[in-house]
Amino acid sequence: MSSRRSLASALTAIAMAANFKLLLCLFSLFPIFTPISTNQYHPLNPLTPAEINQVRTIVKQAQPSSLHNLTFQYVGLDEPDKSIILSWLSNQPTKNPPRRAFVIARSDLKTHEIIVDLSTNSIISDKIYHGDGYPLLTFEEQTAANKLPLTYAPFIASISKRGLKVEEVVCGSFTVGWYGEKKRTKRIIKVMCYYLDGTVNLYMRPIEAVTVTVDLDQMKIIGFLDRLTVVVPKADGTDYRRSEQMPPYGPQLKGIRVVQPEGPSFTIDGHTVRWADWIFHLAFDMRAGSIISLASIYDVDKGEYRRVLYKGFVSELFVPYMDLTEEWYYRTFFDAGEYGFGLCAVPLEPLKDCPENAVFMDGYFTGQDGTPGKTSNVFCVFERYAGDVMWRHTEGGIPGKVIRKVRPEVSLVARMVSTVGNYDYIVDWEFNQCGTIKVTVGLTGLLEVRGSNYTHKDQIQEEVYGTLLAENTLGAYHDHFLNFHLDLDIDGDANSFVMTNLQMTRVTDNRSPRKSYWTVVSETAKTESDAKIKLSSKAFELLVVNPSKKTKVGNHVGYRLIPGSVAGPLMMDNDYPQIRGAFTKYNVWVTPYSKSEKWAGGLNTDQSQGDDNLAVWSLRNRKIENKDIVLWYTLGFHHVPYQEDFPVMPTVSAGFELRPANFFEYNPVLKDRPAKVVR
Amino acid sequence: MSSRRSLASALTAIAMAANFKLLLCLFSLFPIFTPISTNQYHPLNPLTPAEINQVRTIVKQAQPSSLHNLTFQYVGLDEPDKSIILSWLSNQPTKNPPRRAFVIARSDLKTHEIIVDLSTNSIISDKIYHGDGYPLLTFEEQTAANKLPLTYAPFIASISKRGLKVEEVVCGSFTVGWYGEKKRTKRIIKVMCYYLDGTVNLYMRPIEAVTVTVDLDQMKIIGFLDRLTVVVPKADGTDYRRSEQMPPYGPQLKGIRVVQPEGPSFTIDGHTVRWADWIFHLAFDMRAGSIISLASIYDVDKGEYRRVLYKGFVSELFVPYMDLTEEWYYRTFFDAGEYGFGLCAVPLEPLKDCPENAVFMDGYFTGQDGTPGKTSNVFCVFERYAGDVMWRHTEGGIPGKVIRKVRPEVSLVARMVSTVGNYDYIVDWEFNQCGTIKVTVGLTGLLEVRGSNYTHKDQIQEEVYGTLLAENTLGAYHDHFLNFHLDLDIDGDANSFVMTNLQMTRVTDNRSPRKSYWTVVSETAKTESDAKIKLSSKAFELLVVNPSKKTKVGNHVGYRLIPGSVAGPLMMDNDYPQIRGAFTKYNVWVTPYSKSEKWAGGLNTDQSQGDDNLAVWSLRNRKIENKDIVLWYTLGFHHVPYQEDFPVMPTVSAGFELRPANFFEYNPVLKDRPAKVVR
Repeated sequence: MSSRRSLASALTAIAMAANFKLLLCLFSLFPIFTPISTNQYHPLNPLTPAEINQVRTIVKQAQPSSLHNLTFQYVGLDEPDKSIILSWLSNQPTKNPPRRAFVIARSDLKTHEIIVDLSTNSIISDKIYHGDGYPLLTFEEQTAANKLPLTYAPFIASISKRGLKVEEVVCGSFTVGWYGEKKRTKRIIKVMCYYLDGTVNLYMRPIEAVTVTVDLDQMKIIGFLDRLTVVVPKADGTDYRRSEQMPPYGPQLKGIRVVQPEGPSFTIDGHTVRWADWIFHLAFDMRAGSIISLASIYDVDKGEYRRVLYKGFVSELFVPYMDLTEEWYYRTFFDAGEYGFGLCAVPLEPLKDCPENAVFMDGYFTGQDGTPGKTSNVFCVFERYAGDVMWRHTEGGIPGKVIRKVRPEVSLVARMVSTVGNYDYIVDWEFNQCGTIKVTVGLTGLLEVRGSNYTHKDQIQEEVYGTLLAENTLGAYHDHFLNFHLDLDIDGDANSFVMTNLQMTRVTDNRSPRKSYWTVVSETAKTESDAKIKLSSKAFELLVVNPSKKTKVGNHVGYRLIPGSVAGPLMMDNDYPQIRGAFTKYNVWVTPYSKSEKWAGGLNTDQSQGDDNLAVWSLRNRKIENKDIVLWYTLGFHHVPYQEDFPVMPTVSAGFELRPANFFEYNPVLKDRPAKVVR
Repeated sequence: MSSRRSLASALTAIAMAANFKLLLCLFSLFPIFTPISTNQYHPLNPLTPAEINQVRTIVKQAQPSSLHNLTFQYVGLDEPDKSIILSWLSNQPTKNPPRRAFVIARSDLKTHEIIVDLSTNSIISDKIYHGDGYPLLTFEEQTAANKLPLTYAPFIASISKRGLKVEEVVCGSFTVGWYGEKKRTKRIIKVMCYYLDGTVNLYMRPIEAVTVTVDLDQMKIIGFLDRLTVVVPKADGTDYRRSEQMPPYGPQLKGIRVVQPEGPSFTIDGHTVRWADWIFHLAFDMRAGSIISLASIYDVDKGEYRRVLYKGFVSELFVPYMDLTEEWYYRTFFDAGEYGFGLCAVPLEPLKDCPENAVFMDGYFTGQDGTPGKTSNVFCVFERYAGDVMWRHTEGGIPGKVIRKVRPEVSLVARMVSTVGNYDYIVDWEFNQCGTIKVTVGLTGLLEVRGSNYTHKDQIQEEVYGTLLAENTLGAYHDHFLNFHLDLDIDGDANSFVMTNLQMTRVTDNRSPRKSYWTVVSETAKTESDAKIKLSSKAFELLVVNPSKKTKVGNHVGYRLIPGSVAGPLMMDNDYPQIRGAFTKYNVWVTPYSKSEKWAGGLNTDQSQGDDNLAVWSLRNRKIENKDIVLWYTLGFHHVPYQEDFPVMPTVSAGFELRPANFFEYNPVLKDRPAKVVR
């Protein structure tokens, strides 16, 4: 797992101007003010192409003087307040809540945070941001930046000096982070390049140690360094296209399919998905990617839907590399805040990215000029059946009877893939019949490798910060930390966070021949500092409970977080990347709900100095007991590359679960009915 | 996750004599000396029914005087030495290795360890075991013991006193452990009972605090305690049969199937399974259950099979409860060593326990009288496809091109389910195309609950060692620790164990604007004590490497253990159950290969005193560098029951992976060929 920002989609070469995302955008122009079909209206629906165009018009009209350099860095739904959403939900179909957009735009070297009201065609507020850090990079500015070296004489000279052809060079944009500079006045990126020469696996062919620094707002080169000459790896046989493979080949399997002769068991109405006892809303955002909202589960005994997850999404994805060389030390990327985890989402391929029983949905983002772009098939929704067992038991203990009951496990998955440069992140939100929500992140794609003159490990006498994967190819050590914003509302807003320790206890009296056992000791977090948790081998359970609701026998209703990773950062607290990615310091945080606290790495993440993020917000140490609270969980991966990560990296997965914990009186699987299977 | 030994299959009631396993045995008598088809011969094949009968005849003939009380507690293959197997493998089809059986029998209150040679129809050795502990319990003796209370006057009186009908009572056998007694001279068990009265979910209806102690060798009651009267839980609505469900019902899904129109891609020849690049041997053992041997993977570039796993199996399964009350403190079960993880394996139900593309295999065990019994469909083997992605990448960084390559994940699973009383353990050995072996254990079935007079949590003033799940029903805290014996032979026998620490490092010179990073520091274990590892949040990687084999660029070829659990025991080292289950003290151990060191909890586990087990063996601190070594990994689950575990417990899974680590020059997925899918 590594991540090459470089925005695959924004890489460019001399010959060609527009990349495919731009092309998509051009084909996706929609008429302004298309009426929205009422029966699909939902206040959490993402902005439609028509609405994106409407936003553009409103913003442009309000700033006519600066139109020449106005750029849209982010456009998304500005959600109505939670209370309004909940009231709307409980009281459909009265008047709809106001429909607003949140825009981050750049104009005259300033970042504007603008709220647009679509109902009244007006701007509610336009605030210039004076703090540190910059908004998401656009595809278009990366594309433009990536082209600059290819006509820049010193760069061309460097390429020629290496005996390479400039027409085979493609480049990518790398965010630069922050390393203690007091004042950063320019939006800069570094552009690094690769040598194609016949391959599509460009990441295996870095032109190492040649760096171009670009001022994004001026869109010009402000720095160039050809530090040393490193061999471009030959990378023979690393092109992953089947047409490029040479014998001997690997095995060929016979076909395997998942079929549903009667069709799927779920329905999608607009963005609302219903399956088994679950209902939830699935939306696309150009920063977060998939957003799950209002996930509720029907309780058959109570005869009502019960609230579980008000909202869940990937809040940030921090990818620090551990290579200190000049071209690598700054690679400490924030994939959501710098590149847009949603913006980098790619169309899913039917039958391959998702099984044949999947249903697809499109997503819309906003281009730099404010026009909508479409990512087809950005989500797939499907029932997952892997041949596993949800519950079973064979009872042989009753004389004269053999009882065997088996209920196969079928779940519902909502999938998105975000390709941030070399890395492909597969994000699955999975709902099951027992009430569990499982999130799985698969990391695949290609490694980000460093060119090196070494061809054998025995030659290496210095620290190389990685594994020699092949001749001239080092796989750099790095991490991936995905932070999930999980606004659980268990049976209502007012919840508490309970930590249950499994505590070894000595038996000091004579009550038992045993000398020891473990018992549980529960503690409710009062304030934010109580809930900052570094996961360890210490055994404990983490719950969000509703302190006002109990089961019949008196247990607080709740949901558990079952973490899938205990990985934390291996950097010093006062190191610059760690200050910016401080949300990784604890695996778990709990904050009181605040509409403005969405992004664990801060709103304006690029070149940020870490003064507006989860770690800072929670320094206020607010009360979190019996409040509307948000759970933040960081899923971490340390990646020491092995040769098996080369030249393609098979999927490595990890995840977490939100599992009901005394939420139901008994397990709902008891009362499900068997699927009728047509054969 | 809890486990009620009690051997569901051995529970009994007044009216009926034989349980289903016994019935199966009766129907499974095979003629002696059925010739084995030569083309299926493999020295690791489990004993056939004919061979089991042959063993019985040989053993009985050798001990005619004690025939009247000879019992077979365990019969299994006595494997040829590793060198012989490997030589046979490399040199088929010359003379077959000797065919031998290992028998543990009881006769005249003594435990015999007997080696039988089937080729010569003779006994090679017959050793009386004088140490502590007893062998596996047989089904038959448990069945007999379970019947004793039902005709025992004091027990009948206790049942009547509670207003219960004795004909609705079923009982189960509980192993008693060891609590510091200096000398244990009797094989005893405790018999505890349940009240059916219409339900099949007997585990929810314990007749609490009535204990019958049985001497197994004498097969008579030697103790009885009616300690106090506890309400039998009404347990309304806990019968899990669909016919017993009342509305409102849960949802009903439409059918979903996995189909392979061209059939499976694997072949099974005898016990040898071939799929994709993998070949392995799958055998059944009445103690271990499934045994994977000789797993090798074909390296397309080298043009040869390369050895990975000589042998892997569940070596022990330790389930200590944390309830100190008189009827519960001793419940610290060893499911493999006391009850037989294979003996408790149950027939898998087609279309439910395994998908419809599965192929089934039968298993044979030995009854107490030495006759073979058959467990039909004890394994299923199937290709697993869940709609997931093995590798993917979308490349948008090359102007004018959009490249999207996706390879769906298909793997091969060999599954077994062992139902040890209330608990059903689903054990999957999964092989994938990238060279990974993944083991997943799913825990499902029913909780073991304690009867209680409490009907609401507010009434509880004392320590109850569990969760109040329903009226009169406490779910006791407990653990499950599964130890896996993993004899990895990476490209040969002589391997080393390498621990790679990910170490945070301060930057104290000026080589970088960074203040810190992490790097890897590897250490090779010299002796057993170096390799005892308590997994923690500390980041490290664990590898078995072949120190004599390197990749082209100079990395040692190896496989990594990717642990799926860091759970360790929460008992004191000197507590009796922990002395017996000391293999749990570390999550990982490495020992030099020794044919006799198979069972992490010792060979004679029942009532053992912990003097012959993994922890003791490794005190010798033998050398393990560049040796034939065995890796032992313990997968742990702490189980705090929640109401969702009641009255049926949905599957909770955990596992581990053995993943190639510089074993291949590059990832083999690169060269696979796409499946042809018929639609």
